[in-house]
Amino acid sequence: MSNVKGPDHSRRKERSRQAILAATRALVAEEPYEKITVEAIAARAGVGKQTIYRRWPSKSAVVFAAFLALSEDGEDGRSVALPDTGDIEADLKLVMRATVEEFADPSFDRMIRALTTEIAVDAALAAEYREKLARPLAEAKKARLRSAQAAGQLDPAADLDLVLEVLYAPLFQRWLHRGGPLTTAYADALVDATLRAFGPGRR
Amino acid sequence: MSNVKGPDHSRRKERSRQAILAATRALVAEEPYEKITVEAIAARAGVGKQTIYRRWPSKSAVVFAAFLALSEDGEDGRSVALPDTGDIEADLKLVMRATVEEFADPSFDRMIRALTTEIAVDAALAAEYREKLARPLAEAKKARLRSAQAAGQLDPAADLDLVLEVLYAPLFQRWLHRGGPLTTAYADALVDATLRAFGPGRR
Repeated sequence: MSNVKGPDHSRRKERSRQAILAATRALVAEEPYEKITVEAIAARAGVGKQTIYRRWPSKSAVVFAAFLALSEDGEDGRSVALPDTGDIEADLKLVMRATVEEFADPSFDRMIRALTTEIAVDAALAAEYREKLARPLAEAKKARLRSAQAAGQLDPAADLDLVLEVLYAPLFQRWLHRGGPLTTAYADALVDATLRAFGPGRR
Repeated sequence: MSNVKGPDHSRRKERSRQAILAATRALVAEEPYEKITVEAIAARAGVGKQTIYRRWPSKSAVVFAAFLALSEDGEDGRSVALPDTGDIEADLKLVMRATVEEFADPSFDRMIRALTTEIAVDAALAAEYREKLARPLAEAKKARLRSAQAAGQLDPAADLDLVLEVLYAPLFQRWLHRGGPLTTAYADALVDATLRAFGPGRR
């Protein structure tokens, strides 16, 4: 092979990337976001600071990458398809209950809170977040909603972006503002309200 | 009068408070939040830094106070009642269109974005925000919803906190993540979805 760097180099690079992302997640779970530095991430990962800066321009970029990597699914890339048992109410309740549980998990909470504040003030990061994470997830969810439309369980004229907002945004806002309990009953209530708003029998 | 400090002192104090809050709002509208300092606010307001620290413990506390003061309504305190023409759909559309316009205003945008990021990571500030601003506003909105329930325009069993979340949270999330256009049509669509979800004819 004439590849000068070779497979060993690639493997080392990937190992160092994984170590950096794992160190970042560990720090985010332990420390307030504003206390975390690129230096601390490098020390925890056992690499030099420059190794991080060669790949990511800023702390928020590494944190974002660490978060994205959570939804990588082994060698197949992402697996974000929603369950489709043919019953939209049951499938959405399953998904929303799992989502509520995720937001109630303290280490996930810290990571998403850090990310949310970065995205709120950094329009470029917000665009990257939409492109790399929010949009693929939304597409997977919309595929499930389209299947419900085809099955006559959802208004075929419903604006699916609006459906997703009505379903998810209340949970997001309640979590962000710590405005109320995040429970299974709440997850179910959001699904019920959404299906009443966009069910097939809407006026 | 035996009041040592007297009415002139009170007036001066109130004038200095107003100058500080106005300076804070002006700076928030001009500068990225992280660049603003208590020193800069003091200089702009023409007061000493200690005058600010005697009243507020931190930059975020002053910014929060500056924001709260926006909803003060002269000497009567707050006036946050919603219109009640007897038509819940028309009244909510009026309110939601105004809210969408407010979020689309660049200087309001900067202020709320700064506040939202502070609240996201500072649980104490989040509690103060809920107590002093979110709760009084929510109560005013719920009073209007109760009147709609009494008029048979809204399910009498509806959970009014959930109704408010379904109505407002999609707008908040779309604005925060810059996820789509903030238009009159969008304001109307949120009211329509909410009234379908919680209308009197719900199953």
